[in-house]
Amino acid sequence: MHRVTILYSTPTDPETFEQRYRDEHVPLASRLPGLKRFALSHPRAMQGDPPYLVAELWFDDAESMKAALKSPEMGETGAHAAGLGADMVVFSGPVDELEI
Amino acid sequence: MHRVTILYSTPTDPETFEQRYRDEHVPLASRLPGLKRFALSHPRAMQGDPPYLVAELWFDDAESMKAALKSPEMGETGAHAAGLGADMVVFSGPVDELEI
Repeated sequence: MHRVTILYSTPTDPETFEQRYRDEHVPLASRLPGLKRFALSHPRAMQGDPPYLVAELWFDDAESMKAALKSPEMGETGAHAAGLGADMVVFSGPVDELEI
Repeated sequence: MHRVTILYSTPTDPETFEQRYRDEHVPLASRLPGLKRFALSHPRAMQGDPPYLVAELWFDDAESMKAALKSPEMGETGAHAAGLGADMVVFSGPVDELEI
């Protein structure tokens, strides 16, 4: 599968961020065409400076991810994210599951 | 599920890093007790400065993740990672899958 990952840094106002993320942003992102999984985590630091929030948008393949990235829904979702008061690092690509 | 995520920055010698990661590090990490999934991705930047490599170690729950983190295998795996010539950010915690 292919994934878009958004690493949010600690927001200027975490309480407002959480409320707006939950009530506004999750509904917006959930409308992305072709979205198959949407995962969230607030991780605990083990080494170095971790993100505040990790958001993952999963798609079946590169084509459906690219189509979602070009969609009007992604335009709206991205613009909303930019107004949440937290820096973002965004990256994408295939995720390989190893045999273990 | 619970996940340990390792974000590697661009290695000083990417070719050697890749060879040692594949041939030495993956076999070491695959021995971690309770490891259920092991995923790797070399993402493409969309905004900001992305990691070079994202490694994800998945466990059923907090208890099995904690047991793995305290294991001799994790000591060996972590020491090996530190010698791969890339900075690391490491974080852990539960990952919530949203209903979409």
